[in-house]
Amino acid sequence: MTYTQLPDEMPTELLDALERHDLRDAQHLLGRRPPHLIADDLARMDAVDAVVAFRLLGKDQAIEVFEELAPVDQQAMLMGLRDTAFRDLVENLDPDDRVRMLREAPAKVVRRVLAGLSAHERRMTAALLGYPEGSVGRCMTPEVVPLEVDVTVGQSLDRVRLRGADAETVYTLPVVDRGRRLTGVVALRDLVLSSPDDALADHVVTDALRVHAAEPAEDAARLMRETNVLALPVVDSEERLVGLLTIDDAVEVIEEADTEDVARQSGSAPWTGHYMAATVWQLARYRIVWLLFLLLAATLTVTVTEAFESTLDKVTQLAMFIPLLIGTGGNAGAQAATAAVRALAVGEVRVFDLPAVVWRECRSGLVLGAMLAGLAMVLGTLFVGVHIAVVVGVALVIICGWAATVGGAMPLLAKRLNIDPAVVSAPMVTTLVDATGLVIYFLTARVVLGI
Amino acid sequence: MTYTQLPDEMPTELLDALERHDLRDAQHLLGRRPPHLIADDLARMDAVDAVVAFRLLGKDQAIEVFEELAPVDQQAMLMGLRDTAFRDLVENLDPDDRVRMLREAPAKVVRRVLAGLSAHERRMTAALLGYPEGSVGRCMTPEVVPLEVDVTVGQSLDRVRLRGADAETVYTLPVVDRGRRLTGVVALRDLVLSSPDDALADHVVTDALRVHAAEPAEDAARLMRETNVLALPVVDSEERLVGLLTIDDAVEVIEEADTEDVARQSGSAPWTGHYMAATVWQLARYRIVWLLFLLLAATLTVTVTEAFESTLDKVTQLAMFIPLLIGTGGNAGAQAATAAVRALAVGEVRVFDLPAVVWRECRSGLVLGAMLAGLAMVLGTLFVGVHIAVVVGVALVIICGWAATVGGAMPLLAKRLNIDPAVVSAPMVTTLVDATGLVIYFLTARVVLGI
Repeated sequence: MTYTQLPDEMPTELLDALERHDLRDAQHLLGRRPPHLIADDLARMDAVDAVVAFRLLGKDQAIEVFEELAPVDQQAMLMGLRDTAFRDLVENLDPDDRVRMLREAPAKVVRRVLAGLSAHERRMTAALLGYPEGSVGRCMTPEVVPLEVDVTVGQSLDRVRLRGADAETVYTLPVVDRGRRLTGVVALRDLVLSSPDDALADHVVTDALRVHAAEPAEDAARLMRETNVLALPVVDSEERLVGLLTIDDAVEVIEEADTEDVARQSGSAPWTGHYMAATVWQLARYRIVWLLFLLLAATLTVTVTEAFESTLDKVTQLAMFIPLLIGTGGNAGAQAATAAVRALAVGEVRVFDLPAVVWRECRSGLVLGAMLAGLAMVLGTLFVGVHIAVVVGVALVIICGWAATVGGAMPLLAKRLNIDPAVVSAPMVTTLVDATGLVIYFLTARVVLGI
Repeated sequence: MTYTQLPDEMPTELLDALERHDLRDAQHLLGRRPPHLIADDLARMDAVDAVVAFRLLGKDQAIEVFEELAPVDQQAMLMGLRDTAFRDLVENLDPDDRVRMLREAPAKVVRRVLAGLSAHERRMTAALLGYPEGSVGRCMTPEVVPLEVDVTVGQSLDRVRLRGADAETVYTLPVVDRGRRLTGVVALRDLVLSSPDDALADHVVTDALRVHAAEPAEDAARLMRETNVLALPVVDSEERLVGLLTIDDAVEVIEEADTEDVARQSGSAPWTGHYMAATVWQLARYRIVWLLFLLLAATLTVTVTEAFESTLDKVTQLAMFIPLLIGTGGNAGAQAATAAVRALAVGEVRVFDLPAVVWRECRSGLVLGAMLAGLAMVLGTLFVGVHIAVVVGVALVIICGWAATVGGAMPLLAKRLNIDPAVVSAPMVTTLVDATGLVIYFLTARVVLGI
């Protein structure tokens, strides 16, 4: 079963079987489909069908499929299950997956989940839920195998054999002192490749990076990506080991943060579920706030045009170039804003880089404006004559320089003010640049045409 | 050394030491700074200073820092090294890191690198370079420890001990038959937790996913993210094992693909280096193509406005709402386009979803347009009177429905035509919607105002 040979689309036999309510046949077909594809199938079905199909899955398969669903879809699925199935599923999830599922869940769902758990699982889950939303503590695994530093490699391996079955990973093993304070980490690979009689202490990496449970998960995940580690030990404020952040959870944190950034940059609130699972109303709700705000901001352009009505009345042809000029300014601003937001996200640019960013974006905007002005003046001369062409050309240079400067600066300013830089989205920069671009255009026209 | 305690900015003492040419002091300070931060420092320095600082690093540290650099920066750094240092560094890189560095490198750099390698490393590197750019083969590691299926767990562990030191990972072990054809994989964890006398065959996962070396690396990386595996076995067209794709490389592939998508969506060619390492000219070069294209496309708006000049002459006030209308249409289109590109990238939407996507985006666009029209008509009445307000309101509903439909459909159409969906960027949708939006606006005006 190679990746390329997997059918993306839900096999029609399976859909047929579900439609015919031939549950045995459907069950058989589902059994042969990989969990991550079933999860995608479920997200695309309507809620009732999805629950029916989900109930047909074998116990282990159900857990694997469930873990692949988005939290909103998980909650919907869970509410459709009968009590025993509900408890079975919830009890068998890893604590971090359980906490992920409960994100933004209504209080009554949280209570029902916690009530159904065994005492041990409930304690672990409650501990993770105690950390702030979006923190490392919320997505780490508390099920680790801590080693003590004053033993041999062989003794450590014995301990891994004894306790490893319950742990989420045994490839990165945290090493602690008697007070459970983190000393360092050791890789299982080193243990396996060393002599059993070696002292563990000789293999412990004591300057290994660690993170605090209350730190933002996204920062920790990007750090893991940059340093290529498979798991990062997590400590509390007293440097005591509380868990491990594993690479699969880190990858998910990064993917979610990127999806959120992308949505914000286009002026949408982030929708965390599966795209095909969102209803039309949900799509509209996530987008309307920004559109309304931007529409209000766009009334600035109405005011500006009104203020220059006399100029426009004298040379109506100026109106012909309004969309082109503000469109180009918006594009130049959006390019700079997008580059700055991404560079901030991956850590290539930081807040103290503001002057450097403004300086380089301003210059590159002017360079771009000059290049564009050449083309625009040729086009303008062809369409309406050389005078207006000069106005358009001059205005383009100034508008592009200004737009790139604003686009580059705003995400960094937002970050300094502790606002998500992606919120200072391309449409916001575009709308701001629209109004100011018009002012630049009309003022240029007055000066060049002497009106 | 906890993450939060690490200084982001290059310590001033270090900068001072470099400036004073106090190399011993600088060397001492560099020794205490983590590699991923040094890599960031180097990308921000000018080329000559960066080479000076890089030469001060210890051998192991130099390799770690080098691996964190972007390929363009790596090539620049390499060309600044003396022959022995050059050969040392290149020989000690992992084959996949070496191949990554050579991406888009000039032929003379590739030749110099290959010439400096030992026969063994050269053979491995040449094999990876034989796969197409962007394929799995280019970023997999060929240094694996294949196990044979008809041995015991204990014998397998012995083999890992013997051969594991050279392998990039030993946590996922591919299992092959006598013809080196892939049978399945086994996790080191299972080997460690099992009895040494167990047959290996009992622990092999035979239905494990695998990828072909010629497949796109991004697809394989997303598959790893979805299925939470640490390494994916890579086979050739005869199902023979050729390597492993490890999670750290997969994460990098995803991050690069996302950065590329983000750049493309804002109408930039993707710049693969560090943002702060790009010169103003490079920034401009990566952005100018789209801006020129969009400017040309924007002349459509000039033509449209010209065609409706008589309408505009009769009611000059119509010009006041041009920026607002096309801006809003552009925003609605950009939201839909961005959502569709992202959903395609993470695999939530596929080409065959086109009718479903068009249907939901069209409806959500109309819903959004109706909401916005309410606000716009109030504003319009206040600014210019009820007649033009009605024109603006009606036009908004149609424009938003149309913009969302175009925005949702174009990325999927592009994908069907094998064009990168991100190229059908927000600015491209915006520009298209600008011109068509104007036609909608003027036609609505003619009908409603009876001119």
